[in-house]
Amino acid sequence: MGKEVIITAALSGAGTYKNNNPSVPYTPAEFAAEAAKAYQAGAAMVHIHPRTDEGMPTPDVNRARDTYNAIRDKTPELIVNISTGWVGLEATLEQRFESVLEIKPEMASLNTNTMNFGMADRKTGHIAFEVIFENTFAMLEKFGKAMEKNNIKPEVEVYDLGGLDNFLLIGKQGFFSAPYNINFVWGTAGGQQFRPDAFLVLMHALPDEANFTTCGVGKNQFPACMQSCICGGHMRVGLEDNVRLPNGELAKGSYELVEWATAAANSLGREPATPNRAREIMGLL
Amino acid sequence: MGKEVIITAALSGAGTYKNNNPSVPYTPAEFAAEAAKAYQAGAAMVHIHPRTDEGMPTPDVNRARDTYNAIRDKTPELIVNISTGWVGLEATLEQRFESVLEIKPEMASLNTNTMNFGMADRKTGHIAFEVIFENTFAMLEKFGKAMEKNNIKPEVEVYDLGGLDNFLLIGKQGFFSAPYNINFVWGTAGGQQFRPDAFLVLMHALPDEANFTTCGVGKNQFPACMQSCICGGHMRVGLEDNVRLPNGELAKGSYELVEWATAAANSLGREPATPNRAREIMGLL
Amino acid sequence: MGKEVIITAALSGAGTYKNNNPSVPYTPAEFAAEAAKAYQAGAAMVHIHPRTDEGMPTPDVNRARDTYNAIRDKTPELIVNISTGWVGLEATLEQRFESVLEIKPEMASLNTNTMNFGMADRKTGHIAFEVIFENTFAMLEKFGKAMEKNNIKPEVEVYDLGGLDNFLLIGKQGFFSAPYNINFVWGTAGGQQFRPDAFLVLMHALPDEANFTTCGVGKNQFPACMQSCICGGHMRVGLEDNVRLPNGELAKGSYELVEWATAAANSLGREPATPNRAREIMGLL
Amino acid sequence: MGKEVIITAALSGAGTYKNNNPSVPYTPAEFAAEAAKAYQAGAAMVHIHPRTDEGMPTPDVNRARDTYNAIRDKTPELIVNISTGWVGLEATLEQRFESVLEIKPEMASLNTNTMNFGMADRKTGHIAFEVIFENTFAMLEKFGKAMEKNNIKPEVEVYDLGGLDNFLLIGKQGFFSAPYNINFVWGTAGGQQFRPDAFLVLMHALPDEANFTTCGVGKNQFPACMQSCICGGHMRVGLEDNVRLPNGELAKGSYELVEWATAAANSLGREPATPNRAREIMGLL
Repeated sequence: MGKEVIITAALSGAGTYKNNNPSVPYTPAEFAAEAAKAYQAGAAMVHIHPRTDEGMPTPDVNRARDTYNAIRDKTPELIVNISTGWVGLEATLEQRFESVLEIKPEMASLNTNTMNFGMADRKTGHIAFEVIFENTFAMLEKFGKAMEKNNIKPEVEVYDLGGLDNFLLIGKQGFFSAPYNINFVWGTAGGQQFRPDAFLVLMHALPDEANFTTCGVGKNQFPACMQSCICGGHMRVGLEDNVRLPNGELAKGSYELVEWATAAANSLGREPATPNRAREIMGLL
Repeated sequence: MGKEVIITAALSGAGTYKNNNPSVPYTPAEFAAEAAKAYQAGAAMVHIHPRTDEGMPTPDVNRARDTYNAIRDKTPELIVNISTGWVGLEATLEQRFESVLEIKPEMASLNTNTMNFGMADRKTGHIAFEVIFENTFAMLEKFGKAMEKNNIKPEVEVYDLGGLDNFLLIGKQGFFSAPYNINFVWGTAGGQQFRPDAFLVLMHALPDEANFTTCGVGKNQFPACMQSCICGGHMRVGLEDNVRLPNGELAKGSYELVEWATAAANSLGREPATPNRAREIMGLL
Repeated sequence: MGKEVIITAALSGAGTYKNNNPSVPYTPAEFAAEAAKAYQAGAAMVHIHPRTDEGMPTPDVNRARDTYNAIRDKTPELIVNISTGWVGLEATLEQRFESVLEIKPEMASLNTNTMNFGMADRKTGHIAFEVIFENTFAMLEKFGKAMEKNNIKPEVEVYDLGGLDNFLLIGKQGFFSAPYNINFVWGTAGGQQFRPDAFLVLMHALPDEANFTTCGVGKNQFPACMQSCICGGHMRVGLEDNVRLPNGELAKGSYELVEWATAAANSLGREPATPNRAREIMGLL
Repeated sequence: MGKEVIITAALSGAGTYKNNNPSVPYTPAEFAAEAAKAYQAGAAMVHIHPRTDEGMPTPDVNRARDTYNAIRDKTPELIVNISTGWVGLEATLEQRFESVLEIKPEMASLNTNTMNFGMADRKTGHIAFEVIFENTFAMLEKFGKAMEKNNIKPEVEVYDLGGLDNFLLIGKQGFFSAPYNINFVWGTAGGQQFRPDAFLVLMHALPDEANFTTCGVGKNQFPACMQSCICGGHMRVGLEDNVRLPNGELAKGSYELVEWATAAANSLGREPATPNRAREIMGLL
């Protein structure tokens, strides 16, 4: 087991807003400020979904570039990982990848299975809202290739074992370069909920030369990340996934969740990887 | 562990054709003949996707009724389970359920997650063809309710742990009646490939009062069904999922795969459940 | 998952000495002082192996009573759990249980399988010393019955799945009273090393009405306890099992390891159970 | 997954007698006859515990040699694996290994943990008889070395995960030669009962260059061997472990259980390995 844990701060996704937690960043300046604090707390990477000033996810390339540059200017050490997931409800597949292929960050997400994506009331089973999150084989192939060609390392997002199998299947074409960096995602309404045994199955199903990290929505965040840390994996925390601390209080920012991750790593005799060490581990150099 | 194993013969789905195996039934008479042989070999239930004379899956209610009646007339003992999955490429959700809600069989499938569904070359990773298999939360809710209201027991099709979680989430609304009958599906291009540990995770994740069966595409069929038999679960075999015997020869019909399942049950000290015993176990009475 | 975690401090076993960590208690007064600090840090229970002034494990009843009373006098709230494992190299089975049956603490350990018990160099595979730790079926039956008759709740020590099966087998005689309290032990030279998947197997193999806790020797302590906390189980830490903090420094006492456990619980949204709440959970009232 | 399955017939152990099944062999001629039939049915190896004419396990070297030679004379193709487990109640460790070190068969068993060994009534939990099966670290080291030095490949008997860890620990001394051949044993009273998830944990815990096979006492035989066959492992069956067929009838000989194993292999698309292929796989050449 590696001593070092790569901590990623997912600053702002497509599902949490300032009304959930006022520290969710919308503007480039807000992203830069949150990213800097996350770095101070132990994060080696930030994962971002650009937003409009009003907070809506957006595929706008200029906005993405401004956000990206703001973070890089303030904290040049950090790895910046840009999402290719939700970038707006009407976005096409092409739009989802446009910013990434323009900006060419070191890393960007690549989702692996088409699935339901909903907002659910977990007590009553009622679905407030849902869309189909489309991630076809064609997308995996076309944009996976484009990312590799542009030296953008995919962070492979796995919501279910089937998603990992989709990656492994397309991977037989041979264009994905090792090491592979896989993120196990837990707790979306549409994907699997965190269970330790399901975590281990994903881990056992990984190909050689794969790193794994994990993230969990809401209360899934803490046990999933802790499980990963026990198993020698990495951790992604942040306001994209979860806006509260384990005691139920609102986090003051993603950095407080990074502090949790740093403490979790230390409690298991591990320590946060620096961004450069994370680059070595994930094959970004 | 129950001594009795419910063996289902999936006679004809949407992915295998006479050019794959000439025994795949298309006409009502062919379905009836295959069903009768499967019953003789130990099947308690047949699972069917109605086809046109040319073999295309079809949502046509009359064709479905003719097929259903032909089976029932020839082998009245059998449970007939009608698919609500693929019924034709252009079929809407409504069309997928229309035949079932008209015919009101004892049991029909209910799929649990939206996913990619492709035809893949497993050696090269190339995808010959793919569609999105749409199974939204709204569908689960609307048609799950309609099935229960019409006393059609859902066979809950689970392609990934996330699909089981979708069922459990919608199930909190309370309209699904116990016992629940869950089918773990393995080996589609888009869903998970069979792994024993993933099987056990699904099994451990089941709610109380749940039965489980399993099916696997191609070579997944044998180990997945055997795993289920070891674990006290049930088995679905047939030409829908797999057209060959373990030795690589074409099966002479679904009945040869049912014979395999009967032998597998016997080899583990179990025996095929009669249709009526299957009705008791699955709550169809 | 219960919110409350029962933290046990194992103050002094048979394998760690003052030359390993000067805070390992030998005298009744030292045990009482260590127990009080552990209670302050969040422990609901202490687990003890009485020692001579020179530090040797001893079956002497008077020494055990003095040690027990010293703890009870100083911290009457605490549950005191007395070991029936090693009490001296030459001790007979009768001697191992004599103190417990005399003193009648609320809880005492009951080991479940005969096994090798060694001191190993984990790098070279050389065994410095070994004995056979004898825990026959006859012992489980005779002393399990005696403990139940005397209202001493067994903490069932499981070093391997076979040990749990031994308990379940003897348990068919019907004299063990629910709830059962099972401790998964990891990392002895002779028993299993901690692996998350092995932990889950033990958890899945538990009978109804069972609580589980865990402990791990040396570096096994932290991941094993964290795994238990993730899974809704309890935690045993302390100088009996491990003398160092995750960062490699010597713990100032078992209380520092209890502080670790309390922080671990909090980091997962749980909190230490009070002794009385622990009594309710474990069926000691 | 290898296509070929090594089937071992355990003809006669220390726990089954002619009053359990009249085909349990005692004399050299009986062993030879049973071995020949097992070979015809698909076995590549026989595993034997020499017996007296009255059926008692015996450490007598001459008797072992006569039994070994009788099998070899009649069926020279077969691998003969001699037990170093029970050879008589009063046998010392030295006696347990004496015959093996004299005869130098290609393979012999090497047990990995000290444990209770009992005859239990599984319904009532009563233990009719028990002994301690002593397999110390010192034995693993001394006799493991002696076996390797004499070119006798150990079949490493694992009754619990802890036993595998004992082997891995002693293995750090470096004298065990790859490939390692591990047998997972299920269902003794004292060791673990068969559970699929426990099987997978053992499998995941294997070192590189390890083969695995399995055997199970009584009803454990069939599911355990089938699980191994699903997972790409090998199978040991025979009257030592189980005297009945899955339908409850007495087996006419170990060969009927080998026929079961051959059918099981075929049902999963595998086939029995010849003795020479088995030698290649297990590193006996």
